[in-house]
Amino acid sequence: MGRWQSGAGERLERAALDLFLEQGFDATTVPQITARAGLTTRTFFRHYADKREVVFGGVDFIQAFVVSRVIGAPASATPIEAVARAYQEVGANFQENIEAFRQRQHVIDATPELQARELGKLAVIASAIAQALCERGVADPVATMAAELGTLVFRLTFERWLNGHGPHDWSGLFRDRLKDAAIVIAGAS
Amino acid sequence: MGRWQSGAGERLERAALDLFLEQGFDATTVPQITARAGLTTRTFFRHYADKREVVFGGVDFIQAFVVSRVIGAPASATPIEAVARAYQEVGANFQENIEAFRQRQHVIDATPELQARELGKLAVIASAIAQALCERGVADPVATMAAELGTLVFRLTFERWLNGHGPHDWSGLFRDRLKDAAIVIAGAS
Repeated sequence: MGRWQSGAGERLERAALDLFLEQGFDATTVPQITARAGLTTRTFFRHYADKREVVFGGVDFIQAFVVSRVIGAPASATPIEAVARAYQEVGANFQENIEAFRQRQHVIDATPELQARELGKLAVIASAIAQALCERGVADPVATMAAELGTLVFRLTFERWLNGHGPHDWSGLFRDRLKDAAIVIAGAS
Repeated sequence: MGRWQSGAGERLERAALDLFLEQGFDATTVPQITARAGLTTRTFFRHYADKREVVFGGVDFIQAFVVSRVIGAPASATPIEAVARAYQEVGANFQENIEAFRQRQHVIDATPELQARELGKLAVIASAIAQALCERGVADPVATMAAELGTLVFRLTFERWLNGHGPHDWSGLFRDRLKDAAIVIAGAS
């Protein structure tokens, strides 16, 4: 989203979201997207493998950012601290793009195939984080659980933040979800 | 899988898995599957919306089973206890089908589209469980977190169980993953 992408990528995403919202995801073609963006289909396929990928342009950025922060976390950080801080930091950049995120979510929510693909992307991020934790010397199964749990908290925080009836404080919402997880786990017998 | 399905559903799944493993998911057509199963394509589409759905025949059973167990859990059960017991119970039926589960996973692992769809199915189960917890009087955000956390533990248990180098004790593996979650969360600041 926005500043995370090249100019052409951003224009293609903007044009695609507009068209998906106007006429639906299924009815929109790549040539329509490129015509709206004033770019060629060749440029489109240099940026995205297919029409679906255009809504996931920001995900690679998130993955690279979060993984680099996990690797660079202080040695004293616990696995979940390293993961949580990385996700808290990446979310701090979201606010300026909230309207674009909402439009994007609107498109995804209307298309089960995109919902599934989004979950697939998050699973790839979780795997990459688990790998980063292993590089910090955290062994499995804790590395995998910390990566998966942090990514779950990120997903639930994102949903709350996007539907934001309350305050849009990303970091506070993230901490609240972590507390929910602690409350839930405390009930395990 | 197996006993959870009607005779025709089971034959179609068996034929489909064999063909997917022999010649790949993409190269396999619905008419090939029905020919192998000795059934008509009309029967196929009475059971499954498309070729992809054939590997998810057991998921509806899991959802119905787990939701009914969450609803029927003792009033004294905490949210995560209700969810965990339901998932522990459903897994007890898996052992007799482990080879079919492994073949199925082999197909899914080779096809990113199926991986994403599987995660989408699990997300639907988690939503249904959250709803069931709400009916038990558990409020959000705890209901959603308990459902998501339990479903995450289920997914990681399933992976371990399937790749099972260690003992194939489903219930023990599930408890170990819950303990991993508690260990990870205890590290949150």
